[in-house]
Amino acid sequence: MHDIAFIIIGNEILSGKTRDSNLQTLALKLIEKGYEIKEVRIIPDDELTIINTVNELRKKYFLVFTSGGIGPTHDDITTEAIGRAFGVSVEINDEAKNLMANYYREKNLEFNESRKKMAMIPKGATLIHNSISKAPGFKIENVCVLAGIPSIFSAMLNDFFQTLESIGSIYSLELSSTKVTEGMIASGLTAIQNKYKNFVTIGSYPSVFPDGTHNLKLTFEGRNLEKCTECMEESKTLLNSF
Amino acid sequence: MHDIAFIIIGNEILSGKTRDSNLQTLALKLIEKGYEIKEVRIIPDDELTIINTVNELRKKYFLVFTSGGIGPTHDDITTEAIGRAFGVSVEINDEAKNLMANYYREKNLEFNESRKKMAMIPKGATLIHNSISKAPGFKIENVCVLAGIPSIFSAMLNDFFQTLESIGSIYSLELSSTKVTEGMIASGLTAIQNKYKNFVTIGSYPSVFPDGTHNLKLTFEGRNLEKCTECMEESKTLLNSF
Repeated sequence: MHDIAFIIIGNEILSGKTRDSNLQTLALKLIEKGYEIKEVRIIPDDELTIINTVNELRKKYFLVFTSGGIGPTHDDITTEAIGRAFGVSVEINDEAKNLMANYYREKNLEFNESRKKMAMIPKGATLIHNSISKAPGFKIENVCVLAGIPSIFSAMLNDFFQTLESIGSIYSLELSSTKVTEGMIASGLTAIQNKYKNFVTIGSYPSVFPDGTHNLKLTFEGRNLEKCTECMEESKTLLNSF
Repeated sequence: MHDIAFIIIGNEILSGKTRDSNLQTLALKLIEKGYEIKEVRIIPDDELTIINTVNELRKKYFLVFTSGGIGPTHDDITTEAIGRAFGVSVEINDEAKNLMANYYREKNLEFNESRKKMAMIPKGATLIHNSISKAPGFKIENVCVLAGIPSIFSAMLNDFFQTLESIGSIYSLELSSTKVTEGMIASGLTAIQNKYKNFVTIGSYPSVFPDGTHNLKLTFEGRNLEKCTECMEESKTLLNSF
């Protein structure tokens, strides 16, 4: 009911040129207010793909976030595509224009046509402010459209989160071991997961390092801290039995 | 026609606990052989979601890769879900069992029931070998199912890529500037992109650093090296005009 989707728009992520970090930023901030991301799509800078993906996900999720494609260059097509997805026109937004005009005046830069493109906002949207370079993101119905540059993505999230209501806490406890491997504890861990299945999700994440050593991280996640703690303690006993 | 999709399966990626690196590994290897990823989905360890996502994407793409969920613990449900997606049974694979039995014997470890789960493979699949810890991935029709642990994901890719036919080269040239910003060159760059639109995709990627400095990276990508080079040279002239 409060599930979140995130759409990462950008050829540079799909091609491996850039490694996304905005998902982690968004997920960790959402968890603080009790929300969870249930689906992420990474798609190219292609208008029809953006329209179809936004229209599919906005019907299924409480909130949809997007990152990328709202700058001044030819490959920044997200704002226009979101306008089309909602069937509304994209127009100069006076509040955005004034914020940006002041910023460029202070910086002694020209507020040229390319920069004015960043003041074009779908009709009916509210601005999401960007304390760094002023060009805003926006929210239209349940879709929040943010920049791709990580520092600006974070600045926009900070603005948006001021008004996002908390729906409770999600707790996440951790254990780790360099001695025990998954194959040793799997059956014991399954028994513990079954016992707590209505309250706690146990995650098991092994790492293997180049020198052949390994680490096993177990996570215990849920909305009931007491149950998470109990479940972790039983798992600790299991780890210590080897 | 040769487009690729990648499905990242794992609650730990969605929750921000772990930052995925397999997309970048896969994309860079695919580009060497001329293939491009056109869509990525990141989904939870949930059977129905895995089945539906795999069945949707395997019809649309030349190859679909998955990462995650093929280990021995209770949250490793990918293999079983893939079997259901294809409507085939999941059974002990003798080749996988023998490889693993030898490996555990050499390591003086018990080949217990949990570890045997990793020798369960959907009927009709072929193995993708893992030089690190032997438990294999597999390919069934056009779906390649790989481990989530980055070192093992890479090892499996290395095995799979030995037999993947090259379909040509994708060239990607780059320019960067710390002086010029997107807002200064956007209109000039649009003109260049329009001129080369049938041959080259220009990407424009600004970074903003905590100290207020910035960097602009331009990329020129396509299958025709001469056109990419020409397009880059014209863009260099544009950058130098400021």
